[in-house]
Amino acid sequence: MEPEQLGLEFLFQPKSIALVGIPSNSANPLVDMFLRPLVEFGFAGELYPVNPKGSKVLGLEFYPSIKDIPGAVDYVIGAVPARFSHQVTQDCAAKGVKAISFYTAGFSETGEESGAALEAEIVNTARRGGVRVLGPNCMGIYCPKGRLAYWPDFSKESGPVAYLCQSGGNSIHLVWMGAPRGIRFSKVISFGNACDLNEADFLDYFTYDPDTRIIAAYIEGVKDGRQFLKVLSKAAEAKPVIILKGGRSEAGTKAAASHTGALTTDDATWDALCKQLGVIQVSSMEELADVIVTFLFLPPCGRNVAIVTAGGGVSVLAADDCESSGLAVPPLPAEIQDQLRHCTTGIGNILRNPVDLSDVFFDPQGVANALRIISSWQGIDLLILPLIGGVPLQSGRRMSYDVLVDIVPNWGTLPPKPTAIVVQPGTHPDASQDAFRVQQEFASAGFPVYPTMVRAAKAIDKFISYHQRRGQSQQEDRNCKI
Amino acid sequence: MEPEQLGLEFLFQPKSIALVGIPSNSANPLVDMFLRPLVEFGFAGELYPVNPKGSKVLGLEFYPSIKDIPGAVDYVIGAVPARFSHQVTQDCAAKGVKAISFYTAGFSETGEESGAALEAEIVNTARRGGVRVLGPNCMGIYCPKGRLAYWPDFSKESGPVAYLCQSGGNSIHLVWMGAPRGIRFSKVISFGNACDLNEADFLDYFTYDPDTRIIAAYIEGVKDGRQFLKVLSKAAEAKPVIILKGGRSEAGTKAAASHTGALTTDDATWDALCKQLGVIQVSSMEELADVIVTFLFLPPCGRNVAIVTAGGGVSVLAADDCESSGLAVPPLPAEIQDQLRHCTTGIGNILRNPVDLSDVFFDPQGVANALRIISSWQGIDLLILPLIGGVPLQSGRRMSYDVLVDIVPNWGTLPPKPTAIVVQPGTHPDASQDAFRVQQEFASAGFPVYPTMVRAAKAIDKFISYHQRRGQSQQEDRNCKI
Repeated sequence: MEPEQLGLEFLFQPKSIALVGIPSNSANPLVDMFLRPLVEFGFAGELYPVNPKGSKVLGLEFYPSIKDIPGAVDYVIGAVPARFSHQVTQDCAAKGVKAISFYTAGFSETGEESGAALEAEIVNTARRGGVRVLGPNCMGIYCPKGRLAYWPDFSKESGPVAYLCQSGGNSIHLVWMGAPRGIRFSKVISFGNACDLNEADFLDYFTYDPDTRIIAAYIEGVKDGRQFLKVLSKAAEAKPVIILKGGRSEAGTKAAASHTGALTTDDATWDALCKQLGVIQVSSMEELADVIVTFLFLPPCGRNVAIVTAGGGVSVLAADDCESSGLAVPPLPAEIQDQLRHCTTGIGNILRNPVDLSDVFFDPQGVANALRIISSWQGIDLLILPLIGGVPLQSGRRMSYDVLVDIVPNWGTLPPKPTAIVVQPGTHPDASQDAFRVQQEFASAGFPVYPTMVRAAKAIDKFISYHQRRGQSQQEDRNCKI
Repeated sequence: MEPEQLGLEFLFQPKSIALVGIPSNSANPLVDMFLRPLVEFGFAGELYPVNPKGSKVLGLEFYPSIKDIPGAVDYVIGAVPARFSHQVTQDCAAKGVKAISFYTAGFSETGEESGAALEAEIVNTARRGGVRVLGPNCMGIYCPKGRLAYWPDFSKESGPVAYLCQSGGNSIHLVWMGAPRGIRFSKVISFGNACDLNEADFLDYFTYDPDTRIIAAYIEGVKDGRQFLKVLSKAAEAKPVIILKGGRSEAGTKAAASHTGALTTDDATWDALCKQLGVIQVSSMEELADVIVTFLFLPPCGRNVAIVTAGGGVSVLAADDCESSGLAVPPLPAEIQDQLRHCTTGIGNILRNPVDLSDVFFDPQGVANALRIISSWQGIDLLILPLIGGVPLQSGRRMSYDVLVDIVPNWGTLPPKPTAIVVQPGTHPDASQDAFRVQQEFASAGFPVYPTMVRAAKAIDKFISYHQRRGQSQQEDRNCKI
């Protein structure tokens, strides 16, 4: 750990927070976003809502200004109109505030000179006063350990994923959709225009953060290319870094400029950089979540997959998806197929790999036996179980994949092959809650869960490629030393 | 219409059905799959369960054999073990049955000589007796008009999509996941090993079927290449034909052989064929559904998209997804942006295209005004509304996209631009039912609905390319005539 990198700890563990511009109407979205989550998370320090017009909100008394707060203030959330933002910054400097996070928009991202000038003025005032600025035009910090959140329903559990995100909406989107798949965060930073603290600062911090094992990022543009390259290189050396780059197209680039004032780099440069540094690139929020669950839950392994499922069509397509994504689906040897024949009726079953267990898929013992037999073969590195034929039968019969949930507690008795699960909650309202339940059971038990086979295969391919590359470069390092 | 093509009508409108091998235990899956749906669909003709051991099932009396049934039998569903299948076929021939659909597996798909020989024997006996065979190793026919179904919960509504599917599971999967997105079927045929009636027969039938406007297919292999090419060519000339080819990889090809005994063609030949004939190829069940909803609900249009959404990050990524999928996102002219500025606060909004309406997204009137202004510009051909930021706020505030549901009934008052909706029900159990509700509201109102932006963009690109190609070839035809 390099001591100078701990300089951002005040963002994640403030002792007191002032919320400036929070209205007194407790049904207002600003209250829902910024104040209520702190109260409900049980933020341990002092909370000071600031608004010259208010009396009380959620049982907390308003202060007319930051200067009127009796105690010290570590951290300020600013939700005032842009025209008041400089005054608030001055007040923060006078009060000895360590950092302010501005939700307020209307700065450099407007593309207008006055907005850019105001942003520059804030930075100047803040720097002279020893205040660090997050944003503006951002949601701020989510840190379960510090009991900080900016959205209701964010998980109170910590996890090993750090996420730096230039978009507030995209930060919420990942936290939200990652939750049922078992993604938990050490820290999430929504950092908007990045006028003072920027992506390089956060990346650098996460590189040395002991609570962070995986770094995820949504970035629209880079403030200081040279500095970013330096910290990205160190970060990628230390931990898996998964980046979704927004603004890859012309219209996207222009939208990014209006969104966060970002000056995006061209695609080819970015691709080359990521490739050289071993940064994992993804192209959508969905893929970002897929790759994160893979790094969270799959141990490093080879490319030889056994596909175990119920159904012929799903078997065929799963094999196609694996091979087209760079995974291999080797045929099981005759002796393994013979053993499998003993625990299925053998009729209508595909046993070569994929293995179609249709006729025992309602029998936990039969499925467990088959998984044991398949896993015993050294020729495969991981199992993928696409459970997407889960259309419930009307008479109350359980979905076919329930049987696998029964096996989960005894999974440890099976040969320990890495296993990935494919289950699709979004296809039909009548099956969705059941599918989510199964998804969450597997996620809680530490399995990576994906909604479609092709998404699973692509994420796993990126994961394996990452480890292969690192293995090679470590080998090269060793060779150099010899 | 060519009269000889009507020869399969007996499959879809039988007057009486015998179910052979149905057990008397009404909780058995075979009852759930084959008998219960016919009863619950209100099949208008006679239903005869056949089983020498049974007495009654679902209130219907068992007959010991087909020969013991008093009335005529048009259609037989065979779920007997393979060793009884030839006897059943002989009984069908003796009884004058028009067609039998064998759920039974254990034939050519086993790869064993005895299985292939049995299948050949069945075909011989059936042909000599004037009986057509569907399958074996298939689910048979779903036809809402004929009140035929092979799975509970299939929609009773007819629609213009015909689906020929070599996999029973994949047939159920599309019907099931297509339902909330508004996909309704004229006929679905699950045809398994295709020992007698095959993909060419069905494709030919659908080409002339007045109830069918769009033809979808999942095919693992082709029985007679020359015949298939001939009918595919006619089908693709007459109607959009969307094909998912199973068995594109080596492992997939081998699995397809074990699944339906299919001899798959190589990828390059298949691709060239589809391209030449204007057949739309898809690579997953999900994409099959995406392309179908596009053909169902989107009128032919150009590639210039206006993206209207709530959120900066989602705007940036949506623009990237559109442009990377072959759609264009042209900037709105200054005068349109000026008009938009009047119906938003203008702060933090992106108005160039994408248009980020965050600050009016809870106001139906504001959104309607903005949509009207955007649509009034001739430079765009269609609207795409990605509503994926729909994380509900805890205090009971409605999801942002609810506001659009309010506008749906008055959509007719907006300038008539084709519109696509992106809403994601599969991300979180707490928001899933709401998202499905919104999805279904839009689907019922005739909008194509997609779960992610990139899936929307790719499907719409294929749709536009199809129409462009047809426009060009019609133009060439006209030029030739001149």
